[in-house]
Amino acid sequence: MTMMMNGLEGVVAASTRLSHVDGERGELVIGGFAVGELAAHATFEETTWLLWHGDLPTSVELKFFRAALAAERALPAATLALLRECARAETDPMDALRIAAGTVSLESDDPIAIVGRMPTIVAAYWRLRKGCEPLEPRGDLGHAANFLYMLRGTPPHDEQVRALETYLNTVIDHGLNASTFTCRVITSTGSDLVSAVVGAIGALKGPLHGGAPGPALETVFEIGDAGRAEAVLRQKIEAGERLMGFGHRVYKVRDPRADVLAAAAERLYTRAGDMSLYALARSVEATAVRLLEEYKPGRRLHTNVEFYTALVLHGLGLDVPLFTPIFAMSRVSGWIAHAFEQREANRLIRPRSEYVGPHDRQWVAVERR
Amino acid sequence: MTMMMNGLEGVVAASTRLSHVDGERGELVIGGFAVGELAAHATFEETTWLLWHGDLPTSVELKFFRAALAAERALPAATLALLRECARAETDPMDALRIAAGTVSLESDDPIAIVGRMPTIVAAYWRLRKGCEPLEPRGDLGHAANFLYMLRGTPPHDEQVRALETYLNTVIDHGLNASTFTCRVITSTGSDLVSAVVGAIGALKGPLHGGAPGPALETVFEIGDAGRAEAVLRQKIEAGERLMGFGHRVYKVRDPRADVLAAAAERLYTRAGDMSLYALARSVEATAVRLLEEYKPGRRLHTNVEFYTALVLHGLGLDVPLFTPIFAMSRVSGWIAHAFEQREANRLIRPRSEYVGPHDRQWVAVERR
Repeated sequence: MTMMMNGLEGVVAASTRLSHVDGERGELVIGGFAVGELAAHATFEETTWLLWHGDLPTSVELKFFRAALAAERALPAATLALLRECARAETDPMDALRIAAGTVSLESDDPIAIVGRMPTIVAAYWRLRKGCEPLEPRGDLGHAANFLYMLRGTPPHDEQVRALETYLNTVIDHGLNASTFTCRVITSTGSDLVSAVVGAIGALKGPLHGGAPGPALETVFEIGDAGRAEAVLRQKIEAGERLMGFGHRVYKVRDPRADVLAAAAERLYTRAGDMSLYALARSVEATAVRLLEEYKPGRRLHTNVEFYTALVLHGLGLDVPLFTPIFAMSRVSGWIAHAFEQREANRLIRPRSEYVGPHDRQWVAVERR
Repeated sequence: MTMMMNGLEGVVAASTRLSHVDGERGELVIGGFAVGELAAHATFEETTWLLWHGDLPTSVELKFFRAALAAERALPAATLALLRECARAETDPMDALRIAAGTVSLESDDPIAIVGRMPTIVAAYWRLRKGCEPLEPRGDLGHAANFLYMLRGTPPHDEQVRALETYLNTVIDHGLNASTFTCRVITSTGSDLVSAVVGAIGALKGPLHGGAPGPALETVFEIGDAGRAEAVLRQKIEAGERLMGFGHRVYKVRDPRADVLAAAAERLYTRAGDMSLYALARSVEATAVRLLEEYKPGRRLHTNVEFYTALVLHGLGLDVPLFTPIFAMSRVSGWIAHAFEQREANRLIRPRSEYVGPHDRQWVAVERR
């Protein structure tokens, strides 16, 4: 039996206990929890443990897991030297992350080392790009808090940590997206975790996957005032521009992650941010959804995760080029969970191609071409 | 429409003009040529051009393409420093190749730089592992000849170059194998060539894909004398051992690449090798195929490409740990051709997963778990 499936849409390529995306109902289950039930409560360490072990950790398990991750945060000299080269060359931050994450193979193929080092790589690279020296990780802080510390040099507020944990939990896994699928294909050959994660980082970089979360907020900034939202958005839609932050290949109703992140953004901006920006973003969102239904009826273009991702990460004072690397810091736990699952009942993932080229060409020596 | 396809077997995931694998008829077409018509005639530069441009190069095109590839052979200091770290850590040669190839992003995303540097990385790393200093590439030699030179420090004989070119041409592309598919999935997100190639190297490393070409010849060495072949092979089959070098998921008759490489091995060993080893290998092959049909009738386990790969590469004096990296040196041109093709008519490759985990879990605080 053969069938051509463009983009493999609708083809089920794996069974998983990790997450469930119901695009028609707008539901996302992560490790058995609705995303709204899990994301706002858990630390990132707990969610990672949940995906790797199938249950939330006991307090003892959590204590040891936090310590194990913290113990792996420091970067070897070779990795740091490479990040300096990347900074000199002004390498794209996702390429720098891929290059540096790949060097975990110099010491191990340990999932804890991979997850533990990702924030250190992201923070060290960004400081180098800004002309600052990287900071040593702090073992007394959690995974999310230490990341913010390593970027800034001061420990973050609790609300900031909570907002980042919520974001990391929200995007940790999402069915067989392209990077997770890449990870499973590589794992299916019997290859190692670092190779699978490095491949997945490369896939996440692409603008059709994780590589374009910035522009959603740019539209909000461009609009500047809620009163201008309708006019600016109408102009964009009529000019044929795609509104960033709206529409998703799988979700045909509102992306459930948008609600979780909207609530996180509201808490964060209330405590530590510019509430007028939050109010403006909500107003732009409502107007955009209404106009998209008016201009493109039936297309069901709702707010996606990128819109509120941008709002939360901006509220944390994070620069746009960091958005996709931070996405990777979270999704890496999901990738590794999928690698574990793929290994449990492995079968080499090897689809077919349909040949549409010529046949029976005859060799002609170069001097007679 | 959804359907569960284990390993995506039988699912057509792409159209391609690059190669056609007919497993039932034992045919492989590369760029319109039967593999036997192409592999023994072309240089690796010509086959690469054929896949990238759809036709063999004219003499002028070939001259400039050879020069362009040769100009990209030298490794930047950062890449060489990293290879020294890998050698110190005794990193797996495929991991070292993945790590070093990823650093092409420090300067460019140029396909010529990627292909041009692969042999330099493989040769430099192997010399470092042997305690020798890497050699500068020689711009006056072709891609294959320069690789053998960089390993040994002396230029190879013509027969050796011809054998290596034939091998590289034979394995340059092979439908949607797992590494090529990885490359297309990564490319489908809009990501860059280096990311796609690095992901593909990680997939090729797996023992179910390219990562186990050595053991085929070990059986030949273990047998040592044609008179012992039947007894040793019977013992192995009866003990439930899998005979390496026989059987393929796609080919149900003799792998057409085996014939091409058998002919290349015969020429090579006649001119520059141990003909008794060649004769022994052919005898072991014939006995193995006969016994596999006797013990596993209908399973159609024929000689695959690994058996003669091992014989050709051994005849070139190459060490077993180099076999998969040399496979990657060839396949990289196919990966890049698939990336070009994917970009021409791109659609994000995003299959679905089937959720088999729990629902509606309720959050429990850590102190009550």
